[in-house]
Amino acid sequence: MKLPPEVTIYEVGPRDGLQNEARTLPTADKIRFIDALVAAGVKAIEITSFVSPKWIPQLADNAEVARGVARPAGVRMSALVPNRRGLDTALASGMKEIAVFMSASETHNKKNVNKTIPETLAAFEEVVGPARAAGLQVRAYLSTAFGCPYEGEVDPQRVVDLTGRLADMGVFQISISDTIGVANPAQVEDVLTRVIAKHPVSALAVHFHDTQGTALANCVTAMQLGITTIDSAAGGLGGCPYAPGASGNLATEDVVAMLHSMGVKTGIDLDKLVEASRSASTFIGHELPSKYLKAHLGKQARARRRAEQQGS
Amino acid sequence: MKLPPEVTIYEVGPRDGLQNEARTLPTADKIRFIDALVAAGVKAIEITSFVSPKWIPQLADNAEVARGVARPAGVRMSALVPNRRGLDTALASGMKEIAVFMSASETHNKKNVNKTIPETLAAFEEVVGPARAAGLQVRAYLSTAFGCPYEGEVDPQRVVDLTGRLADMGVFQISISDTIGVANPAQVEDVLTRVIAKHPVSALAVHFHDTQGTALANCVTAMQLGITTIDSAAGGLGGCPYAPGASGNLATEDVVAMLHSMGVKTGIDLDKLVEASRSASTFIGHELPSKYLKAHLGKQARARRRAEQQGS
Repeated sequence: MKLPPEVTIYEVGPRDGLQNEARTLPTADKIRFIDALVAAGVKAIEITSFVSPKWIPQLADNAEVARGVARPAGVRMSALVPNRRGLDTALASGMKEIAVFMSASETHNKKNVNKTIPETLAAFEEVVGPARAAGLQVRAYLSTAFGCPYEGEVDPQRVVDLTGRLADMGVFQISISDTIGVANPAQVEDVLTRVIAKHPVSALAVHFHDTQGTALANCVTAMQLGITTIDSAAGGLGGCPYAPGASGNLATEDVVAMLHSMGVKTGIDLDKLVEASRSASTFIGHELPSKYLKAHLGKQARARRRAEQQGS
Repeated sequence: MKLPPEVTIYEVGPRDGLQNEARTLPTADKIRFIDALVAAGVKAIEITSFVSPKWIPQLADNAEVARGVARPAGVRMSALVPNRRGLDTALASGMKEIAVFMSASETHNKKNVNKTIPETLAAFEEVVGPARAAGLQVRAYLSTAFGCPYEGEVDPQRVVDLTGRLADMGVFQISISDTIGVANPAQVEDVLTRVIAKHPVSALAVHFHDTQGTALANCVTAMQLGITTIDSAAGGLGGCPYAPGASGNLATEDVVAMLHSMGVKTGIDLDKLVEASRSASTFIGHELPSKYLKAHLGKQARARRRAEQQGS
C-alpha cells in the first residue's frame, strides 16, 4: 500500500474540541493541556479561536491561552480568526499562524458566518492580506466539502473552485473538511482527485469527523492520494453538539495508532498523548470517545487490578 | 474506487455478540432479535453456538433458538459448532450451515480450544466430513490472523497455509479474523494478497473487530481486493469482554451505512436494522457502541423534541 512516510497531525482539540463543551473550562487547564500535547510531540496545534465571546464564551480567554502556552521551536501554534478584529487580537497575542473558515455550501456558510460565500471571500481579503503582510501563515478550512446538513450533496466542482480562490489569496494550506461526518472513501477519492488535479497536494489537509465511523477509512484514501496533513482532536474531543453520544472529530489517538502500526511516522509519543487526553477528560468532566483511548485505559485498569490481586 | 457491486453481510450479533454479555438473556428475546434482523433484510446470520453450557451458559438455549427462529427462503442461518457432539445437536435442531473455529497462533488456539493447531485440524475432520455428508455447508473462522494477544505478530504464511488446510477439508468459506482488533489496512492488504494468490477470493470472508476504530478502513481494503463477505454484529454487539468500554465487533450499521453511501448493495434496510439494534439494546440492558446507531438515535431524539416543542 502506497502511503507517505510521514504525516503531520494538526491537532484541533483545544479549539474545535473545547468550543463544543457545555462548560467553560479554566484557562490554566487549557494551557496545561496544550503543553501536554506539545510534550507528546504534537507539532501543529490550533490552540483557540479569536472570535467574539458573545458567540463562543468557552474561548473568551483566547488571548490568555495564546500568551500562556509554551512555544518551543518547531511547534506551530495556530488560532481560528473570523475577522479583522480577531486578527488584531491574535497579532497582539503573539500568534504566528491563523486559520480562516468558510463552507462549500451556501446555506451552511450563511448560518455559520451570516454571509454569502462571495461576501465571505471578500471579507477574507481584509484578514488574509494584512495577516500575511504581518508575517503570519494563514490556513483555511473549507467546511461541508463532502456534504451539507441543509443542502445534502455538495458539488465537487465547488470544492475545486473555492480551493483555487483560497490558494490565490495566499492561504498556505486548505483543509478540506467533512464537517458533519458523512464522507465515505469513494467520495473522498473522487473529490480529492479533482482538487489535486488543479492544486498541489502539499497545500491540502483533510479534516474528517468520525460521526459514522468512517474517518480512518477516509484518511487512508486521502494518504494514498498523497495528503500528508490530517486534522484530529485528542481523545476525539468535541463530540457532536447536535447528536448526544455521537462522535465528532476524528480522535488523534485513533489516527496516530493506525499510522504508526502501518509504519507512517508522526513524531508523536502515543503513551504521552493518551496521558494528555486522560488528563483532559478529568478537567472536562466526561469520557472521551476515542476507541484507542478507551481500549488503552481498559488495558491499564486490568493491569492495575492484576497487580493489586498479586499484592494482596 | 474499485468496489464490488454487492456485499453479503454475515451477521454475528446473536452469537458472537450475546455470548459476550454478562447476563443470560431470555430465549424469546433472542428469537425476536433474529427475526427482526431477517425482517431488515439480513441474508446470513450466525444465530447461536452448539457449545457446552459449561463453557458459554449464555447460549445454553441453542437448540430452542435454532428451532424457534423463522427460516424464510434465501436466508442462511448458521451456528458455531466446536465438536462432534455440537454437530449432532445442530443437526437435530435443523441447522443447514455450521461454522468451526481455530486460531492462526498456537497460544491463542491452545487457550481457546485446549488443543494444538494440528490437534484442532484433526478434530475438524470429525465435524466437517460428517457435516458435509449430512448436506450441511461448513464455514471456518481463522482467528488471530492479524495478531495474537499472547504471541503478538502472526506470520502471514501461517494464514495462507491454514486457509489451504481448511479449504482442502471442504469448508466453503473461511473468515480471516482480526480477533483482537489490531489489523490495519496496509497489513490487511499484505495478508489478503498472499491468501488470494493461493485461494479463490470468493471462498473468503473478513471478520474485523473495531477495538481501535480501524475496522471500516480494513473493510475498504478487503473489498478493493475482491472480498464480498463481511462479518459484523448489529449495533456493534459483543463489546470486548477484556476491555470495558472498548468496542468489539464491527457494527453492522456502520459498515452497511458506509457501503450504501458508496453505492455497494447489501439488501439491508438500514432503518429496520437500527430498529432491531435499538430493541436489542433494550432487552440487553445497555447502549450499543455503533457510531451510526448513536448518531441516528440522537437525530431521532432531536426530531421528537422539536415535534413536542411545536406541539406545546
